[in-house]
Amino acid sequence: MDMMMKDMMSNDMMSMPGMESMDMTLMQACMDACSACEQACTVCSTQMMDCSPACMNCADMCNTMMRSMLRMQGMTPAAMMSMLDACMAMCQVCMDKCMEHADMSEVCKMCAQSCKACMDACMAMKDSMMRMG
Amino acid sequence: MDMMMKDMMSNDMMSMPGMESMDMTLMQACMDACSACEQACTVCSTQMMDCSPACMNCADMCNTMMRSMLRMQGMTPAAMMSMLDACMAMCQVCMDKCMEHADMSEVCKMCAQSCKACMDACMAMKDSMMRMG
Amino acid sequence: MDMMMKDMMSNDMMSMPGMESMDMTLMQACMDACSACEQACTVCSTQMMDCSPACMNCADMCNTMMRSMLRMQGMTPAAMMSMLDACMAMCQVCMDKCMEHADMSEVCKMCAQSCKACMDACMAMKDSMMRMG
Amino acid sequence: MDMMMKDMMSNDMMSMPGMESMDMTLMQACMDACSACEQACTVCSTQMMDCSPACMNCADMCNTMMRSMLRMQGMTPAAMMSMLDACMAMCQVCMDKCMEHADMSEVCKMCAQSCKACMDACMAMKDSMMRMG
Repeated sequence: MDMMMKDMMSNDMMSMPGMESMDMTLMQACMDACSACEQACTVCSTQMMDCSPACMNCADMCNTMMRSMLRMQGMTPAAMMSMLDACMAMCQVCMDKCMEHADMSEVCKMCAQSCKACMDACMAMKDSMMRMG
Repeated sequence: MDMMMKDMMSNDMMSMPGMESMDMTLMQACMDACSACEQACTVCSTQMMDCSPACMNCADMCNTMMRSMLRMQGMTPAAMMSMLDACMAMCQVCMDKCMEHADMSEVCKMCAQSCKACMDACMAMKDSMMRMG
Repeated sequence: MDMMMKDMMSNDMMSMPGMESMDMTLMQACMDACSACEQACTVCSTQMMDCSPACMNCADMCNTMMRSMLRMQGMTPAAMMSMLDACMAMCQVCMDKCMEHADMSEVCKMCAQSCKACMDACMAMKDSMMRMG
Repeated sequence: MDMMMKDMMSNDMMSMPGMESMDMTLMQACMDACSACEQACTVCSTQMMDCSPACMNCADMCNTMMRSMLRMQGMTPAAMMSMLDACMAMCQVCMDKCMEHADMSEVCKMCAQSCKACMDACMAMKDSMMRMG
């Protein structure tokens, strides 16, 4: 996302209760990690290994998470934390499944790494919100 | 979903640890409620009232929830409960926003009712899973 | 979708150029067929047969088609016809792939039938729009 | 998408009839433009201007287009060209709508630019495929 759009989103959030001090750098990193994870999971889901359904679930959840961060006007801090929990839970399932055959498949290995990066970014976001709260 | 597809999904779940005794009737009702809520939120999001971003978030979360229930091979009971929590949280935000102008807009009123029905169906699903566990 | 929501959508369309005489019964049937096809494709995509990537593509296209019909304020007749063409093309690919093993898999057979029904509903919608135009 | 994933996708396509000589650089650029357009449209859809439904339609179509390019195993050249047409048509509608108030809104202006970039990338992709065919 370009700098100007990020500034506008930041401005919009100034007027949302409980979101005035949201860390926009962490949020940007979280959106990027969700987007990368959606893409990796989508590719991995076509490799016809048994992680495929988990990858599809994870791709959809990551896309929903990213979009929701682009639409914070329709979120509350509590709902956001619940969504972050669900996103981390789906990334965990997908990572675990993909790690089972990371030795056999480079795609699965990369997908697992993307899931891990997404979980970390969601956790950093959630930690930051809990410190704010 | 037709009866035969439901039977097959039910059979698939027999071999998934922790999901053998999932209540397929509640799950079917939950998928239907998610689908109805996605549609109501999508219509409501075009009415240009201030609930619009919440409706879009809720539509995406409901679609992701429904799809995940159609792909239980890629879920665990723990991830499913976390997703149900997130779905209920988003429905709550959307319902609260839409109720603010339910008197002025029939669409918002219907959207709020769909959100409530979806929350109830998710809660029934989660309660049933907790009794199983 | 309930009757009242359908009436409202119909009213909204009265004020959209080129859409005043859209056949709402065909449009409702088309949305239902897209939704059913999204669900059948989502289930079929988990069966780990070689139709899986086509099913995922088809599920996403059907969902996008259905949502766009719920948001006609953001469409033009020309864009709608182009989307219908794309949806029919994806359903054709998915149906062809699933028919290759319809004998071996009841899920693939049902998925192919849903794709066919969705193509037919999209074609009926497009024919009706061309007669209007 | 990282280089290794791109190489694998390229390898996968070697075995798909009619896709052996697909230009992976153009396809990568097209996926990036779709992803950027989905994000810009999602932000723009929350600004409560009358482009909002068009932005939502465009965001969904761009996401579906991007995902389909990540799952070329489930595509044919003909279906891909039809999808590219639909994506260009939706970007055109969204761009036209957003340009109506580009003077009043920086977000709409950026969204229109993202739509234009996405149309250009889709057209480059389609041109390349027609030369191949």
